[in-house]
Amino acid sequence: MDSSATRCVVIIIYGLCFLSILIESKGSSKTLNFKWDVEYMHWSPDCNEGVVMGINGQFPGPTIRARAGDTVVVELTNKLHTEGVVIHWHGIRQIGTPWADGTAAISQCAINPGETFVYKFLVDKAGTYFYHGHYGMQRSAGLYGSLIVDVAQNVKEPFHYDGEFNLLLSDWWHKNAHEQELDLSSSPMRWIGEPQSLLLNGRGQYNCSLASQFSSPPLDQCKLTGTEQCAPQIMTVEPNKIYRLRIASTTALASLNLAIGNHKMVVVEADGNYVQPFSVYDMDIYSGESYSILFKADQNPAQNYWISVGVRGRKPNTPQALTILHYSPTSPTLLPTSRPPVTPLWNDYDHSKAFTNRIKASRGSPKPPTTYNRRIMLLNTQNKMNGFTKWAINNISLSLPVTPYLGSIKYNLNNAFANSPPPETFSPVYDVMRPPVNPNTTQGDGVYMLKFNSTIDVILQNANALADNVSEIHPWHLHGHDFWVLGYGEQKFTDKDVVNFNLKNPPLRNSAVIFPYGWTALRFVADNPGAWAFHCHIEPHLHMGMGVVFAEGIYRVKNIPKEALTCGLTGKMFTDKKH
Amino acid sequence: MDSSATRCVVIIIYGLCFLSILIESKGSSKTLNFKWDVEYMHWSPDCNEGVVMGINGQFPGPTIRARAGDTVVVELTNKLHTEGVVIHWHGIRQIGTPWADGTAAISQCAINPGETFVYKFLVDKAGTYFYHGHYGMQRSAGLYGSLIVDVAQNVKEPFHYDGEFNLLLSDWWHKNAHEQELDLSSSPMRWIGEPQSLLLNGRGQYNCSLASQFSSPPLDQCKLTGTEQCAPQIMTVEPNKIYRLRIASTTALASLNLAIGNHKMVVVEADGNYVQPFSVYDMDIYSGESYSILFKADQNPAQNYWISVGVRGRKPNTPQALTILHYSPTSPTLLPTSRPPVTPLWNDYDHSKAFTNRIKASRGSPKPPTTYNRRIMLLNTQNKMNGFTKWAINNISLSLPVTPYLGSIKYNLNNAFANSPPPETFSPVYDVMRPPVNPNTTQGDGVYMLKFNSTIDVILQNANALADNVSEIHPWHLHGHDFWVLGYGEQKFTDKDVVNFNLKNPPLRNSAVIFPYGWTALRFVADNPGAWAFHCHIEPHLHMGMGVVFAEGIYRVKNIPKEALTCGLTGKMFTDKKH
Repeated sequence: MDSSATRCVVIIIYGLCFLSILIESKGSSKTLNFKWDVEYMHWSPDCNEGVVMGINGQFPGPTIRARAGDTVVVELTNKLHTEGVVIHWHGIRQIGTPWADGTAAISQCAINPGETFVYKFLVDKAGTYFYHGHYGMQRSAGLYGSLIVDVAQNVKEPFHYDGEFNLLLSDWWHKNAHEQELDLSSSPMRWIGEPQSLLLNGRGQYNCSLASQFSSPPLDQCKLTGTEQCAPQIMTVEPNKIYRLRIASTTALASLNLAIGNHKMVVVEADGNYVQPFSVYDMDIYSGESYSILFKADQNPAQNYWISVGVRGRKPNTPQALTILHYSPTSPTLLPTSRPPVTPLWNDYDHSKAFTNRIKASRGSPKPPTTYNRRIMLLNTQNKMNGFTKWAINNISLSLPVTPYLGSIKYNLNNAFANSPPPETFSPVYDVMRPPVNPNTTQGDGVYMLKFNSTIDVILQNANALADNVSEIHPWHLHGHDFWVLGYGEQKFTDKDVVNFNLKNPPLRNSAVIFPYGWTALRFVADNPGAWAFHCHIEPHLHMGMGVVFAEGIYRVKNIPKEALTCGLTGKMFTDKKH
Repeated sequence: MDSSATRCVVIIIYGLCFLSILIESKGSSKTLNFKWDVEYMHWSPDCNEGVVMGINGQFPGPTIRARAGDTVVVELTNKLHTEGVVIHWHGIRQIGTPWADGTAAISQCAINPGETFVYKFLVDKAGTYFYHGHYGMQRSAGLYGSLIVDVAQNVKEPFHYDGEFNLLLSDWWHKNAHEQELDLSSSPMRWIGEPQSLLLNGRGQYNCSLASQFSSPPLDQCKLTGTEQCAPQIMTVEPNKIYRLRIASTTALASLNLAIGNHKMVVVEADGNYVQPFSVYDMDIYSGESYSILFKADQNPAQNYWISVGVRGRKPNTPQALTILHYSPTSPTLLPTSRPPVTPLWNDYDHSKAFTNRIKASRGSPKPPTTYNRRIMLLNTQNKMNGFTKWAINNISLSLPVTPYLGSIKYNLNNAFANSPPPETFSPVYDVMRPPVNPNTTQGDGVYMLKFNSTIDVILQNANALADNVSEIHPWHLHGHDFWVLGYGEQKFTDKDVVNFNLKNPPLRNSAVIFPYGWTALRFVADNPGAWAFHCHIEPHLHMGMGVVFAEGIYRVKNIPKEALTCGLTGKMFTDKKH
């Protein structure tokens, strides 16, 4: 893509009004009904047969395509033999429907085998979303799919494109999710290691490569007819047209980087919010994030090009995922002659930070309140507990209760979770640059009770893990809200850092990373009654306790479906009062 | 053992009063309290590491040892991450406590992760019992243990012995139970195959043998120090003493045969009921059965001897399980010089039938009513259903409902299960010697409603499976009752067979096999209010629908713990009536 073409794309984008996203097209909004069965299936996501958790015989699950203002109704039936299930609609704020957030032990009881739960919620805001299991490690088991919300019928996107593609990114292990849970919960902890494969829309190739002549370490050329479950979905473009590529990462672990060989990408959306467009040749995507990029098919149309996705942020041991950008009418099976784009070095954090820092809210986006009512400092540490390895926040490792918070708070049930709130901050003398002096932690299930409509600042503070000179990236995801990302910084956050907060055009997102040894400052308004998870989106980390729970205005929540609460102390309450 | 020694043992047994088992020693009866956590564990049951479902860190689960008249209280906490769990107390009739039978969807809702359910029941009758999971295929996952009920304090066993041993038999697959469930539920069905190992008290050896010089196919000698999880438990005896060996089989699939090299065994108990003692050199044990045998340590005390367990009834592909009968003070690690007892040919059904037909009730055992009120004929067939493979009874393949029958029947809930009762019999022209003319079946969840206190005859009729010239052994197990085994016969049961029923000394049991192409006649009194599973104890067969449900006198059941019913329509009923 030459620079004039890039400029052309950017000009188109700037030329449109971003306020359009706020308009609700009530006249044409619809209710979309889906009946889904969740079950295990034999599947070969990476050409190696395993077992996936699928929906209606599909892996990944069906893509939901709605318009802003529509109501989505998913009747979810659990067809597993002995396991509960829930589905979280990642990025949907569930305004007025906190019981439909799909987080086991927080917004609802897990749906038991044979039972059906109806998720009914408004998709109020156009954007690129996805859904996934939020119970145990069912995301790692393959329970996920895409949720795309188009602008309402009479609304135009603030940029032009001729066609679009969707890429849901995930990572895949050959060890099943139950064994992963056990490994992580064992003393000593057994780390699950790097994924065997990266998947693009549920498709990857293990032990072979689509680009074997370039693969290092060497791999055989994949012999695929195109009909296999693991065959790549080829993206076909027509020369000189502009395409939107929607990208979301539901990885259990991997931080990723995506590039399209020779093609420049213009980032226009992050987590369902428009951003000030900017051009890149590669982009990082952390678990829990979604993006839209535009690209123009402006390269030699006699060739095809690689789309590559590789691991970043952890020393990779997984080959790149590849698929082909195919220029019509060239043959779609013509392999690109060039080397697939090389993923930036896994630990080139400057590259990562440069990308992240370029993400700014688009013009017309809602601005953050200029002050906060409460600041919560959250120290992220890796810890030990009686020989087990845990992740903890302010030295409390989250252990979810049996009774969903939404119910226990609504009905003022004592003993459903810890009475004392978790700590507001951590010791001012904690040295984030070194392993913890005392690595011991405890488990807890306390809740940060937020005053309704108050403005909350959260400072996520990273630290050194248990081993010397190790500090990992953690992508944090907030349920029920978007937050403004006010800033990122190095080492320990201090009050002096506040002056550098971006209050002018901070991006609105539902996910944000903390970089190694760094901090990230977020602001949100606690204006959505419900109980909301806020956690590291790396599933093994959440499993090991890396999360907290916020709750606000639950007294305002009416009509919680009883089916959401037929377990634990709420189940007992319903039961004891009758018969 | 020479014949005079055998006679001596037998004389001791005959000389005692069998009525003693009915005496309840109320003065000394106790309540035994247990707190159990169920969780997955890394374990090496056969020297190959896998994942087992264990209890309190043990595999198999802890042995419960009680006295007749005691009350057992097990507070069972589900520490699994996403799966429900129940435990069935196999052989305990649960008189007055049908909600404690531990059958998911029949007697209770599965216990959800994090929740605790209290099983409280009377062990009214001395005998050799066991317990196991009864949800999905959690028995195959390793959820089982022994339950031994000694005679009450002032009561003597009707035979003498100097010491005793306990052997819980099971089979083990390297493929996890979830994948087994999926394989069996797939279209086309994928058969799970023969187990990788047989386990004695949870211990087996894969890919090596304790008796390698005799193994065929050849296997390396196991190199074990004795401290491994897979090391055999050696049984140490003193010369010339008499021992009781309690044996129970909780296999998922395998029919077994047990022998003690050179030692004669006297069978004295079957399924918690004394039998007329008889001597054998090897004995069959089907899944769901338990036995006690007596043997005298009357062989050359300078040697040790093999105890061997091998597969019968299916073409075996699993090595014998072995352990050592060790004569003190000989070294326990001295390997027997003789070849382990050879398991009778897998398809030598005459041998099997000869053993089974020798089992008669001991003198003084309760006699069956001489007539029946209702006869239910149950045809066992293998079938097809939309490409899936099923097992069906009278052409209905059991598909358990979401709401436990005990609750839905107690509260007269409509739509909890099929209104129409399942068929009382099958077509008189059905040819049991050939594959089904029409192999199609349907699923159902109807119940055989039995008149309280009526006498029920059940004729289990075997048939040819889907393939030509195949008819398998099925060990049927009844919950909530013992039944009298009135007789076994070949081919199709006819009214003329009734004259050969044994009404004089039919054994009281809770499990009985049907032999290939044969029938088995059972009689029981429907005198225990509750909902009771009656099913093939081969777990994959039950998973594929091979069972029925009996219910009787549920209107008499009071005080069902609400925790047993907080799911499905009973859960909804409790919930809807309040709030």
